[in-house]
Amino acid sequence: MKIDVLTLFPEMFDGVFNSSILKKAKEAEKVSYNIVNFRDYSDNKHQSVDDYPYGGGAGMVLKPQPIFDAVSDLKGKGSASPRVILMCPQGERYSQKKAEELAKDDHLIFICGHYEGYDERIREHLVTDEISIGDYVLTGGELGSMVVIDSVVRLLPGVLGKVASHENDSFSTGLLEHPHYTRPADFRGMKVPDTLLSGNHAYIEEWREKESLRRTLKRRPDLLENYLLTDKQKKMLEELKKTID
Amino acid sequence: MKIDVLTLFPEMFDGVFNSSILKKAKEAEKVSYNIVNFRDYSDNKHQSVDDYPYGGGAGMVLKPQPIFDAVSDLKGKGSASPRVILMCPQGERYSQKKAEELAKDDHLIFICGHYEGYDERIREHLVTDEISIGDYVLTGGELGSMVVIDSVVRLLPGVLGKVASHENDSFSTGLLEHPHYTRPADFRGMKVPDTLLSGNHAYIEEWREKESLRRTLKRRPDLLENYLLTDKQKKMLEELKKTID
Repeated sequence: MKIDVLTLFPEMFDGVFNSSILKKAKEAEKVSYNIVNFRDYSDNKHQSVDDYPYGGGAGMVLKPQPIFDAVSDLKGKGSASPRVILMCPQGERYSQKKAEELAKDDHLIFICGHYEGYDERIREHLVTDEISIGDYVLTGGELGSMVVIDSVVRLLPGVLGKVASHENDSFSTGLLEHPHYTRPADFRGMKVPDTLLSGNHAYIEEWREKESLRRTLKRRPDLLENYLLTDKQKKMLEELKKTID
Repeated sequence: MKIDVLTLFPEMFDGVFNSSILKKAKEAEKVSYNIVNFRDYSDNKHQSVDDYPYGGGAGMVLKPQPIFDAVSDLKGKGSASPRVILMCPQGERYSQKKAEELAKDDHLIFICGHYEGYDERIREHLVTDEISIGDYVLTGGELGSMVVIDSVVRLLPGVLGKVASHENDSFSTGLLEHPHYTRPADFRGMKVPDTLLSGNHAYIEEWREKESLRRTLKRRPDLLENYLLTDKQKKMLEELKKTID
């Protein structure tokens, strides 16, 4: 997969792209990262990338020209029809399902604004996807693009080896994960539940399934609405509801 | 505000904390960042921070000892009762309201896991807040903590100067922002709406209010449920619904 990122703050990406899974994926040639300062594409002598908004108001607006020309150039170098992704608060709310969709593509171009709004013509005529990572205000699209890139790259075939697996992750199964414990069994008076120390695997599996349901019911009941419960889980959930009410 | 981050990947933070608003806030002494590798607190000779899960299964689990001791040490150096924030998929879904709440505090400690789960005793006995930035799977808590820190620091008094303002941001007003346009009025055949070029400020304000409502209705109707509409906006919305249906 080829990933281009258009930003005015290229230095933000070094540490993240050179650590952990994102670094390993690059070294294994599963992905390439190309950070582009779109100021380099500005066609005016001051290399400006923004201008005042039509109609007045506070703040500056990113001009169409540098971003259109940068994307056009990058298209020439990669896929003829890459995903062009605008990171913005007005975008589709990002989800694991979207990560899985993007992971099937071979060329992603991210556009990251900073402070400013985007000229609407970028949105209307250039981008294929608008993504928001959540309902909170960030200074720019950079952190959002790193979040999307991390979630996508770890899904690429061959990227997650023995270091990690994503089968039991929350949001992959549809339920929140059950609690985990490791040694010591008694840490400063805080103890591991007896069931986990019992060595009885049937008990342990049942405990985990129940605790996963309990946590989801308590913290994210909305996830249960879209989850297909087994008959056993339905029974467990009825029991749990009695203890929580 | 004092911010400590516990992580096994300290190098991920350099670029982000040394750019833009986060850098300016530090230089203006509105905030200090302290990145701590909690491996340094491990009390065993191999400096291990994780171990196998009780009850079996794939993956490793972060041990309680290094994280308890790191937090205890950091508490001694800052506020006696800091927020201890665990970044995890099971946490409360992050929102602008939570950012505003955290911005009132003077000492935040973030715990970032990586690959592994956390020993449940960390969750039960050490942390004050569990936060998830969204329903997608990330490799670690690092990117999430950067997202939270960026959204919080920009709310601290005196941090956002003339470079940016947050009054009109999406999620601050409760509606998505209206479209923006800047020069040229005709960019390669793509034109700016006539109203914005009219110079009539009453028309422009009305256009912006309507387009903000239109975008919210089309993309995030859920936001309208919690938004207190004026009578004028109610009328606009009724009109808009007719055109969209």
